[in-house]
Amino acid sequence: MPFFSQQQLALAAEVVHAATAKKVMIASAESCTGGLIAACLTEVSGSSAVFDRGYISYSYESKTAYLDVPQDIVVACGAVSGEVARGMAEGALRHSIAHIAIAATGIAGPSGGTPDKPVGLVYLGVAVKSKKDSYALKNNFTGDRGEIRLQTVETALRVLKKEIDSF
Amino acid sequence: MPFFSQQQLALAAEVVHAATAKKVMIASAESCTGGLIAACLTEVSGSSAVFDRGYISYSYESKTAYLDVPQDIVVACGAVSGEVARGMAEGALRHSIAHIAIAATGIAGPSGGTPDKPVGLVYLGVAVKSKKDSYALKNNFTGDRGEIRLQTVETALRVLKKEIDSF
Repeated sequence: MPFFSQQQLALAAEVVHAATAKKVMIASAESCTGGLIAACLTEVSGSSAVFDRGYISYSYESKTAYLDVPQDIVVACGAVSGEVARGMAEGALRHSIAHIAIAATGIAGPSGGTPDKPVGLVYLGVAVKSKKDSYALKNNFTGDRGEIRLQTVETALRVLKKEIDSF
Repeated sequence: MPFFSQQQLALAAEVVHAATAKKVMIASAESCTGGLIAACLTEVSGSSAVFDRGYISYSYESKTAYLDVPQDIVVACGAVSGEVARGMAEGALRHSIAHIAIAATGIAGPSGGTPDKPVGLVYLGVAVKSKKDSYALKNNFTGDRGEIRLQTVETALRVLKKEIDSF
């Protein structure tokens, strides 16, 4: 039984084929998805030509030290924030040979939610080597832990595809 | 639709619960599985207490620079070898706060196989902080790309469970 659905694999294949055509290398930095974005991309045969490396930053300690996200930003904004998503993407780009990096940090649940930051809140961060500024996208997904992670992966793949098409 | 089967999630939950009970932190270094081992472990709610971080080393460049696997070992033994699997696990352990690291490097196919190193050849590397020597396990899996990755994840989870039980 495969891990990914046909729809997810089709999305991942679109990203890999677009990146191959444009000679774009990809890196990832994942918190709430725990490696699923990279796992989905690398399910596509030939992805080794375009997927450079991935960082899975899961413990509190790894969030600050691993990708050079400044500790004061993590403390001030929280690990689940647009600022940290951008910092993770920028860190992955800096520590790789990729041209674009995608990052995800969020609250997949079932625990960990607060009124300010409910379960399903997920920030995607995007950093592109040829562009000065990174950016973050705020999402409010619904469903259980698996469904929230699933929506995060699919949204991340769509964002990657759109960015790579503009290269 | 969830990414993982009930059997995979049950295996992952066993690892997370054993690690929680023994206060063991886990790190991963994945090549052919592209993040699936970490993704399966972190599908378990509460895994953030025991899963520290993961490295996905996919491009050739990332294999040597990322986890300090000496380039002469990669050249002499090949990226798919017990030596590199051990080096990846040792590197992940060194660059994390984990007590145990699991690594996977192999040929998931459909291309990339040779008579010496056929599709389905996967080495798992295991490094434990309290033990001097790391070790590697050689596997010859069968099936398509997804099935080979699936068997790698399940075997890695079983190896982790057995090691953590001995802590």
